[in-house]
Amino acid sequence: MKNTIITISRQYGSAGRGIGHLVAEQLGLECYDSQIISKIAEESGFNADYVKQNSEMTAETGFFASLTGMDLYTYSNRDTIWILQSRIINELAEKGPCVIVGRCADYILRDKYDLLRVFIYADDEDRIRRITEEYHEADSYPEKHLIANDKRRAAYYDLYTDQKFGDYHYYDLCLSSSSLGIETCAHMIAEAYEKKTAE
Amino acid sequence: MKNTIITISRQYGSAGRGIGHLVAEQLGLECYDSQIISKIAEESGFNADYVKQNSEMTAETGFFASLTGMDLYTYSNRDTIWILQSRIINELAEKGPCVIVGRCADYILRDKYDLLRVFIYADDEDRIRRITEEYHEADSYPEKHLIANDKRRAAYYDLYTDQKFGDYHYYDLCLSSSSLGIETCAHMIAEAYEKKTAE
Repeated sequence: MKNTIITISRQYGSAGRGIGHLVAEQLGLECYDSQIISKIAEESGFNADYVKQNSEMTAETGFFASLTGMDLYTYSNRDTIWILQSRIINELAEKGPCVIVGRCADYILRDKYDLLRVFIYADDEDRIRRITEEYHEADSYPEKHLIANDKRRAAYYDLYTDQKFGDYHYYDLCLSSSSLGIETCAHMIAEAYEKKTAE
Repeated sequence: MKNTIITISRQYGSAGRGIGHLVAEQLGLECYDSQIISKIAEESGFNADYVKQNSEMTAETGFFASLTGMDLYTYSNRDTIWILQSRIINELAEKGPCVIVGRCADYILRDKYDLLRVFIYADDEDRIRRITEEYHEADSYPEKHLIANDKRRAAYYDLYTDQKFGDYHYYDLCLSSSSLGIETCAHMIAEAYEKKTAE
């Protein structure tokens, strides 16, 4: 029997990562998130920050690359990271049922595993509060930081998958953590998983 | 205190209507669906089928209207239906907490009520099976019928609201009835409602 894997795609700042960990805790499953970055860093020799910046988002390309489109037509470090990421995610999924946060796992594992594909989103206001107060990731212009990250994440999906980030067609359930709250989101996902695996 | 209203937007053939009725039953609420059509028919003098065809979808415009764009620039029967529909939906929401299926209730009631905005979707395969075997609405080309209906529903949203049909930004939760099943969808919505109203 195929392992059932929960993949959590999420808007930047939507608490998708926290929800993923809560779901895993409730169901007694492993949750893979930053371990994937560490593994890629270890195997590629790139540092973890560089991997993080290039494993889910397009790079902030320089002026020359944006003019020539060079970034798209050469075999880049990001391509190397994508290949490693795909292999590592497949290895993790093989181990047993688990929760995987981000990293296009829904796309990478499609057709190979039984997936519960979740998309988590949130209001901009909550996302800005979270990236400044909780993640401490935003510079002095958090709105700009948010928009740039959204664009880079969507562009990454466009580049490496044939899916559209946030389009309901590619998910089994899409939940707003702003409207429902983190605990309710986690509880709903766990419920959907239990229902799915009981069949 | 404002009434909390559950609005269920749904893809054609996704069982959104059935889910709405199940949710209402579980929560002991009224569920408004075809009654809205009857009320509009009663007040406008149009027959119920005509109202149904023009209260949620753009018309199948003729060649002349499509050439001149006349359909968009004249005050149409559909405009009359929209105005009546808005008034009737507001009156129903005023009565007390309830479930309203379709008819852009999420847009009509925005900012006036506390809403739980749900979007239900399903795989094309399930939708085709449902519209042929359960609704008996499709002609001999169900795929064509489905595509035409999807387009007309999306065009209606474009015309009368500033929302994009099926875009997660406008919903609190989006559920695939194909992946989760009708009962689980209903249960999740009821859970979200109970959580929301308990706050």
